[in-house]
Amino acid sequence: MPGMPFLLDPRLEKDTLSVCEFELCRVLLMNDRRYPWLILVPRLYGAVELTDLSERDADRLWDESLHTCRTLKAAYPRGKLNVGTLGTVVSQLHLHHVVRHEGDAAWPGPVSEADPYEEKQGRELAGRLAGLLEG
Amino acid sequence: MPGMPFLLDPRLEKDTLSVCEFELCRVLLMNDRRYPWLILVPRLYGAVELTDLSERDADRLWDESLHTCRTLKAAYPRGKLNVGTLGTVVSQLHLHHVVRHEGDAAWPGPVSEADPYEEKQGRELAGRLAGLLEG
Repeated sequence: MPGMPFLLDPRLEKDTLSVCEFELCRVLLMNDRRYPWLILVPRLYGAVELTDLSERDADRLWDESLHTCRTLKAAYPRGKLNVGTLGTVVSQLHLHHVVRHEGDAAWPGPVSEADPYEEKQGRELAGRLAGLLEG
Repeated sequence: MPGMPFLLDPRLEKDTLSVCEFELCRVLLMNDRRYPWLILVPRLYGAVELTDLSERDADRLWDESLHTCRTLKAAYPRGKLNVGTLGTVVSQLHLHHVVRHEGDAAWPGPVSEADPYEEKQGRELAGRLAGLLEG
C-alpha cells in the first residue's frame, strides 16, 4: 500500500541483529551462532508473497539476493547456500540466506531453532558482513 | 560447462513426475500428495549454487520462478508459497515451490519426508499444472 510506513515484524526484530540497508531491503543477521544467516526484508508495507511485489521490486529483490549470495560465498567459500522464503511463522515477506556446512547442526535437513550469539560476537559479525555487503 | 549435456540428478528423477519444460528449466512435480510442490531445475551442466549462473540465466530462473509462483497462487489462492533452494541432499541446483496451507502436515515448519501420490492422481495433477503453466 503506497504511503503506508514499513514496520519490521516484531518477531524478526527480536530474533535478529541489524546489518545494513540495501535500496529495497533491510538486511538482518539471524541471531544463531551455528550458521552465517542473513535475512532480506523488502521495506514495503504489507508484502507477504513474492507475487505481491511489482516487477521492479521483484527484480530489485533478486539483484540484492544475488549480491548477498555472492558476498556470502566469497566470505565462506566452503559453504553451501540455502536461499528461501517460507512465511509460515512470520508472514512479512523475508528471504533467508543461510550458509550451511557439511555436518552442521541440522545437516542435511533445513535449519530450525536458533542458538544465539554472545552479544559482542553477534555485533562483530553483523558489522563485518555489513562491510562486505556495502564494500 | 558449455557443451556438456544436462542430466537430471537420479534422486530428483526418482522423487518427482515430469510436468513441462520452460526456456531454462525442467519443471517437476514432487511426488508428495500433501503439498502441491513444483521444482525448477535449470538445464545446465554442473550448476550447484545460484552464484554459478550467468546473469542472463539467473534472470531467466527468476522469471520462471515468478511465473511458477503466480500460477500456483492462482490455482491455490488460500495457499502460502514456500520458495527456496537447499542443495544439502541433492547438489544439482533446483528451486522448490511448495504450496503450504495452515495446519498442513508440517505447518509451520518446513516440509520434509514425502508421502507419494497414487500413480494416476500424480499423473493427472502433473498434467493439470503443465496446462496452467504453459497456458
